[in-house]
Amino acid sequence: MRIATYVGNGAVHVGEAMIVPPSSGEVQIAVAYAGLCGTDLHILHGSMDMRVTTPLVFGHEMSGTIAAVGAGVEGWEVGDHVTVMPLDWDGSCPACLAGAQHICQNLNFVGIDSPGALQQSWNVRAEWLIRLPADLPLDIAALAEPVAVAVHDVRRADLTRGDKVVVIGGGPIGVLIASVARRFGAEVAVIEVEPARRAQVAGIGFATLDPRETDQVEWVERWTDGAGADVVFEVSGAAAAVLGATSLAKVRGTIVVVAIHPTPREIDLQRVFWRELRILGARVYERTDFDAAVRLLSAGDIPSSLLITKVVPLTEISEAFEDLENGRALKILVDVGGGG
Amino acid sequence: MRIATYVGNGAVHVGEAMIVPPSSGEVQIAVAYAGLCGTDLHILHGSMDMRVTTPLVFGHEMSGTIAAVGAGVEGWEVGDHVTVMPLDWDGSCPACLAGAQHICQNLNFVGIDSPGALQQSWNVRAEWLIRLPADLPLDIAALAEPVAVAVHDVRRADLTRGDKVVVIGGGPIGVLIASVARRFGAEVAVIEVEPARRAQVAGIGFATLDPRETDQVEWVERWTDGAGADVVFEVSGAAAAVLGATSLAKVRGTIVVVAIHPTPREIDLQRVFWRELRILGARVYERTDFDAAVRLLSAGDIPSSLLITKVVPLTEISEAFEDLENGRALKILVDVGGGG
Repeated sequence: MRIATYVGNGAVHVGEAMIVPPSSGEVQIAVAYAGLCGTDLHILHGSMDMRVTTPLVFGHEMSGTIAAVGAGVEGWEVGDHVTVMPLDWDGSCPACLAGAQHICQNLNFVGIDSPGALQQSWNVRAEWLIRLPADLPLDIAALAEPVAVAVHDVRRADLTRGDKVVVIGGGPIGVLIASVARRFGAEVAVIEVEPARRAQVAGIGFATLDPRETDQVEWVERWTDGAGADVVFEVSGAAAAVLGATSLAKVRGTIVVVAIHPTPREIDLQRVFWRELRILGARVYERTDFDAAVRLLSAGDIPSSLLITKVVPLTEISEAFEDLENGRALKILVDVGGGG
Repeated sequence: MRIATYVGNGAVHVGEAMIVPPSSGEVQIAVAYAGLCGTDLHILHGSMDMRVTTPLVFGHEMSGTIAAVGAGVEGWEVGDHVTVMPLDWDGSCPACLAGAQHICQNLNFVGIDSPGALQQSWNVRAEWLIRLPADLPLDIAALAEPVAVAVHDVRRADLTRGDKVVVIGGGPIGVLIASVARRFGAEVAVIEVEPARRAQVAGIGFATLDPRETDQVEWVERWTDGAGADVVFEVSGAAAAVLGATSLAKVRGTIVVVAIHPTPREIDLQRVFWRELRILGARVYERTDFDAAVRLLSAGDIPSSLLITKVVPLTEISEAFEDLENGRALKILVDVGGGG
């Protein structure tokens, strides 16, 4: 079978590997599609070399079909359409015992800390499977993982119908959060500096603004009749966005930190104090988020066709990463071709 | 009557003023004691000159006895012991309409934005009054306002019995938060760099640590069996404390920002994201906090005698501010001597 691995030094290698049968408790998935995301790009850049062991089969957004079922696995059959929730917790750390297994203190994130989906035949623990409806196209289903991230972020914010929501950053996760928030009944505005992205976001029907042209605080004040936004999602990763976010939220409003900020960021704590703001970290997802993501994709609530800019064969993965790097695509799917 | 005013340029003036009868809806209080706090010191330093109008009768922590009742005031009688919740909201801004009157977007903070308690005969709106039990000594009762701050901070954190709580900063508000948290069933450790303060805090029975001598992250990890603290209160105002606070909290733990941070502070957002932390601003108090504060003071749950380092006559207020400035006192009460 064909397989893509990160081999260190910024290089990805496409090669061949033996297909091994699933162990007890595992199923074998013929991987159909795998999505490439910012984290994969971080891995490729070497930014996560301290954490990953090379060669690493990466990929953690995927869809596929069960090709074989290991001993002791019940409830799953060959031919079932599935995706994988790539979280493997220990169940015994303080976080797990407190019910936050998804952010287990010893989490194995599948596709980063252990082999992922960029292989045609992938053996995974049956507990990680999420069932896909048979009529949901497998390319769209490959968006389940990033949609689950967005659902988790929105749920974490305790969004209420009618809330006014600002999303800072109009990339794939920003668009997904905006889409999920809208589906949950919010009015959404997206702040994005890049004109092409802003046009895309506007095309899906969201209010957009360019913070370099518009006074964002004044704009949000007017939009919310002087109250400020109920929820602000910081998805840009930019220091300036973090510093400005606190001025956009209403009294007792919420700021959700979605983006990765590798170095400490300045925050206006005076404003946090003055308005009794709430800043929340939100990471990955719980099973309920994944289930909701699949339902939203099935219902057509996610602008999948806009998001999936490109589908490439596994052999062209290096070029795909270059496109992603240069902002030439929102979401690129790899046609892994498992079982084909 | 005698009166103390901030007259600008770091100066406080003690003089005489006419006693005026209370207007309709007001009561006249013979002020017994007024506490000096960090905010008063900020005013004196000129740091709040943009906000205050001079001459300002400052003081917002107090106790006293009703000396006269204005027209239309019901439920209050001459001789009643009272304190004042010094918040005057407009009732119509978005924050008020959403139920957060205490942080009204157009709040008049009495004693900062309008005349306060450092006058022997003080006319206030009857709505601002909080009843004091007749048997609660008026010097102890003058602590109601800072205790209400502490109650608000602890309530904001959703503290649960058995929680492990870290308080960063062992000054008056830190000690009050620690005391209230303990009364609410928490185990409390206080981080304080200053040896004399650390000894005082230890004397009230709290675990203490010096972050310059002890690795605070390791200490908290051990204290919490590897989980991290349920709640961290940032009361120090120090940049290093803010940067370190995120490493002390458990997965989904809470950090309450109590201190004033006049300039933006660096925060480890990677940690906020990784552990799904919650950072909350907490400002002033609601009526329920004030009522609880009076009950806690009456029940002897607050180490009042340790906190009240000194009681001085109104004429010695300048020296009192110097003592406060130089860390020679935790809480100084001014014996205003109203009605005396």
